[in-house]
Amino acid sequence: MKIQRSVFFVSDRTGITAELLGKTLLTQFPDVEFHKHTTPFVDTVEKAEAVVAEINRVTLQEGKPPIVFSTLINDDVRAVVTSANALFLDFFADFIGRLESELGLTSSHALGLSHGMGDELAYQKRMDAVNYTLSHDDGVNTANYNRAEVILTGVSRTGKTPTCLYLAMQYGIHAANYPLTPDDFSDGMLPKPLLPHHAKLFGLTIHAERLAKIRNERKPGSRYASLENCRSELRASESLMRQAQVPILDTTTKSVEEIAISILHATGLIKQVKS
Amino acid sequence: MKIQRSVFFVSDRTGITAELLGKTLLTQFPDVEFHKHTTPFVDTVEKAEAVVAEINRVTLQEGKPPIVFSTLINDDVRAVVTSANALFLDFFADFIGRLESELGLTSSHALGLSHGMGDELAYQKRMDAVNYTLSHDDGVNTANYNRAEVILTGVSRTGKTPTCLYLAMQYGIHAANYPLTPDDFSDGMLPKPLLPHHAKLFGLTIHAERLAKIRNERKPGSRYASLENCRSELRASESLMRQAQVPILDTTTKSVEEIAISILHATGLIKQVKS
Repeated sequence: MKIQRSVFFVSDRTGITAELLGKTLLTQFPDVEFHKHTTPFVDTVEKAEAVVAEINRVTLQEGKPPIVFSTLINDDVRAVVTSANALFLDFFADFIGRLESELGLTSSHALGLSHGMGDELAYQKRMDAVNYTLSHDDGVNTANYNRAEVILTGVSRTGKTPTCLYLAMQYGIHAANYPLTPDDFSDGMLPKPLLPHHAKLFGLTIHAERLAKIRNERKPGSRYASLENCRSELRASESLMRQAQVPILDTTTKSVEEIAISILHATGLIKQVKS
Repeated sequence: MKIQRSVFFVSDRTGITAELLGKTLLTQFPDVEFHKHTTPFVDTVEKAEAVVAEINRVTLQEGKPPIVFSTLINDDVRAVVTSANALFLDFFADFIGRLESELGLTSSHALGLSHGMGDELAYQKRMDAVNYTLSHDDGVNTANYNRAEVILTGVSRTGKTPTCLYLAMQYGIHAANYPLTPDDFSDGMLPKPLLPHHAKLFGLTIHAERLAKIRNERKPGSRYASLENCRSELRASESLMRQAQVPILDTTTKSVEEIAISILHATGLIKQVKS
């Protein structure tokens, strides 16, 4: 049996940051089974005391102190949580101190500046981008491509739609996508709606075996999903994109996050993300 | 003029974690204008040397060392990056050491365990959920609600769609949404397709002024967007949801992330997020 250990992610806001970084650290210990508890919105001393009671209860029950990852900003709340019987790892306290001394400034200790609405304009841009992406999915509304910042293309099930949604949701990028179908391969030219937007195009491709697997989950046993058809579609689409000098990314072993970051990196769109 | 300072986010993978936590820390210094550079996929000594050259170039140019946030796992790569003339803040090194001694184990130093495809089953669940959410948006495909884990309801533009997409993309939750329209308010009952799924329902509401603003951006000057109509729709929808004992969340000042976490928290939808 694996070693068991309880873990708490404690935050005065959503807990997304604490969870993300904490989980990344925990993946470095594959031999331990971690029991994870997330306690978001711990923004008062009372809520902090409830968390401490829960941590201490787990400590007693398991005979081992849990690991607590925290992104608490408020000193009073943090003081309460650190009183629990646990290994307390705080992602803010140490770094804020070092930044303060490097910058020669005192930090604002303000809450809610990430994962909140924060800068309302930036938030609005993200929501606009999500709406744009939803209404420009799968080759619809090509007339509005002048508003797109990037247009993903490639055959069905190469990851275009989730990548567009991720780019919109996380980065506020107006991302459209246009599927390449067998009809597009006959004359060796990019589909007409894409021609005026060549500079925004980014092509996705994938290994035929993986594509066949994904398509088979959707339409089992279909010609659409057959390895032979996947191979032929991929060969034709890659040749078309190469000929048209569209940059191509292989998504076979990449997550949506990795595809999105690769595109931002390759297109220089990341500059718009820079502040 | 604000104090200027350059910042680098350096990662051997996507850089998402380094950027997220780094930016959260930087928001604590509102009087400084940070110039941000993200360098993802720094996974070889050669790439690390290129990053160091760029950091040192910026140091020379600006006469001040940049701040470097890193999530580098590989010791050789990290050794190169730390040789740059900069304030080096590493989100892994310190914490990994403390975890190793608490757990009595050596960490695996393995790359790519977050934001990659990682656990392929979990990744597949997220992609399935995104597809489900896209095909169950805005009240379509109500016959498949048995597969939904949560069904968001509320009047148009309360945040249902982006919240569903976020829940699907980040947590692999099958989230559907069903809009409440004036037609639904006449008989004082929830719409028929929702009745068999009462336990999965979660209602969203918003202040009328904010709703009118959002709707006016979409359909300026319309009756749909008028403050009077927004007030009346919200009053009727809240009364309907209260009567049907559907939990209600006010999204007026909440981001999609905060709405999603609040729903996960309130419904106990995934155990990991529960406290």
